[in-house]
Amino acid sequence: MSGIDWIAVDWGSSHLRVWGMAGDAVVFRRTSDAGMGRLEPDGYEPVLLALLPDLPDAPLPVLICGMAGSRQGWREAPYIAVPCAPPVKAIAVPARDTRLAVRILPGIMQGSPADVMRGEETQVAGFLALNPGFDGVICLPGTHTKWVHVSAGEIVSFRTFLTGELFALLSTQSVLRHSVAAEGWDDAAFAEAVARAQTRPAAVAADLFSLRAEGLLHGLSPDTARARLSGLLIGMELAAAKPYWLGQPVAVLGAPQIAGPYRAALQAQGVPVTLADAERMTLEGLKAAHRAMKGTE
Amino acid sequence: MSGIDWIAVDWGSSHLRVWGMAGDAVVFRRTSDAGMGRLEPDGYEPVLLALLPDLPDAPLPVLICGMAGSRQGWREAPYIAVPCAPPVKAIAVPARDTRLAVRILPGIMQGSPADVMRGEETQVAGFLALNPGFDGVICLPGTHTKWVHVSAGEIVSFRTFLTGELFALLSTQSVLRHSVAAEGWDDAAFAEAVARAQTRPAAVAADLFSLRAEGLLHGLSPDTARARLSGLLIGMELAAAKPYWLGQPVAVLGAPQIAGPYRAALQAQGVPVTLADAERMTLEGLKAAHRAMKGTE
Repeated sequence: MSGIDWIAVDWGSSHLRVWGMAGDAVVFRRTSDAGMGRLEPDGYEPVLLALLPDLPDAPLPVLICGMAGSRQGWREAPYIAVPCAPPVKAIAVPARDTRLAVRILPGIMQGSPADVMRGEETQVAGFLALNPGFDGVICLPGTHTKWVHVSAGEIVSFRTFLTGELFALLSTQSVLRHSVAAEGWDDAAFAEAVARAQTRPAAVAADLFSLRAEGLLHGLSPDTARARLSGLLIGMELAAAKPYWLGQPVAVLGAPQIAGPYRAALQAQGVPVTLADAERMTLEGLKAAHRAMKGTE
Repeated sequence: MSGIDWIAVDWGSSHLRVWGMAGDAVVFRRTSDAGMGRLEPDGYEPVLLALLPDLPDAPLPVLICGMAGSRQGWREAPYIAVPCAPPVKAIAVPARDTRLAVRILPGIMQGSPADVMRGEETQVAGFLALNPGFDGVICLPGTHTKWVHVSAGEIVSFRTFLTGELFALLSTQSVLRHSVAAEGWDDAAFAEAVARAQTRPAAVAADLFSLRAEGLLHGLSPDTARARLSGLLIGMELAAAKPYWLGQPVAVLGAPQIAGPYRAALQAQGVPVTLADAERMTLEGLKAAHRAMKGTE
């Protein structure tokens, strides 16, 4: 652990990433699947200690973003309400091991329409740190896709869609699991389904069953069915998120396999799209918050 | 088994109902959860025999509708294409036990939009047997809700919605399971959500996440969340099924707990609704098919 002067942590529902930092430089990166979903409050510190052997004696600052700050997490870091800049003021979490000085960044809330985020605000902070002055919309595709309107360094409003979770449930738990491939893709089928769902969003629940029926009757390939399922759900989302992306520059922050389809769907609407890696934005956001906190100490 | 001269069977994905019949009269009713989903082709006959002790020596006609006739079922009874009357010509299934003379009724298919049904066509037949001359629309709510246009004794067209399966997955498997009650209801919240989803169907994927956020931020009650979840999904379905129900008399065939909400949602649109019990319609449909088959022997 020589040279490390702080630890950055992204602690989500199903995973955990830890970076050993020397100032702005990454010295090591470690991951675990001990996400919030499988931990009791007492379980966080042991998981962290197991990932950080050879701690120095002096308290090492540990800065965490994500679901570890939820009510069911390590300790609740209450939401900040929009409009607001991405939070940099983290709450202190007492650790039993005095070599850890743990803080958790709060999430963000919106009263109406009711909405919440935990973790994505740090990705937004990272994107803004790298793109100061950005004014537009940030789309963060994932299990719960977020559309975030950013202006003058603040998050003005946002909206969460259950698209990724619907895709996962439908492709693995519903009757469609018999018709939809686990991998595989079809660009044309995706584009067609996006267009169809944007035009007729209400019909999506029927178009979903048609994937099964076309498999039975017309031999629809599982790869095509997978791309069409994704297209129907993303097309429906784009129809509802239109007030966000229409006439705006859009940055899509996500892993390539999910950011790619969003970019394709948005570009088909003539929207200028920038891609950025979600993990990198998280780390940049944690670095920005760490710098800001040091500045106020 | 004295007096029994045939057996009526509704063999679905997750359940099985057997009626011992003397002509049109029910002598006994037995059920099992040995649905198609858990049976190999060899498994059907033993399940049936276990439900039918004391069989007479002479072959007893057994007439089956539902998923037992699917490709993954006991034996495939190929689909009949719309437009068509509900099928009465069942395929013979060789049984090892010579005391059984088994037949399975086929399902119905539609080429475009691609769609299939197995079992619901027999409920439609039962409704038509009790309501000869009915011209209008039959809605069969369930895991896969069907809207069926009936005219001059024929099924003209139909469309299947994944609404019931979406409700089950979202309320028990998704992040919404933390916010949605297993029981409980709120009529006003249901009606409001139906209206909202009919007006803004595309926004449903975001309105779903709001159920979670309103629970976290504003203490939305789990009963209200459950009714609103149901309303959002049924409202979206009604928006897409409008070509079916607009200006038509609608018969809703379903169990009371699911038929009730559909009736409420349709009546709010000024649609005249008749309710009928789904299980009774299935039996009436099997009786009608049995009579028709006897007439052609």
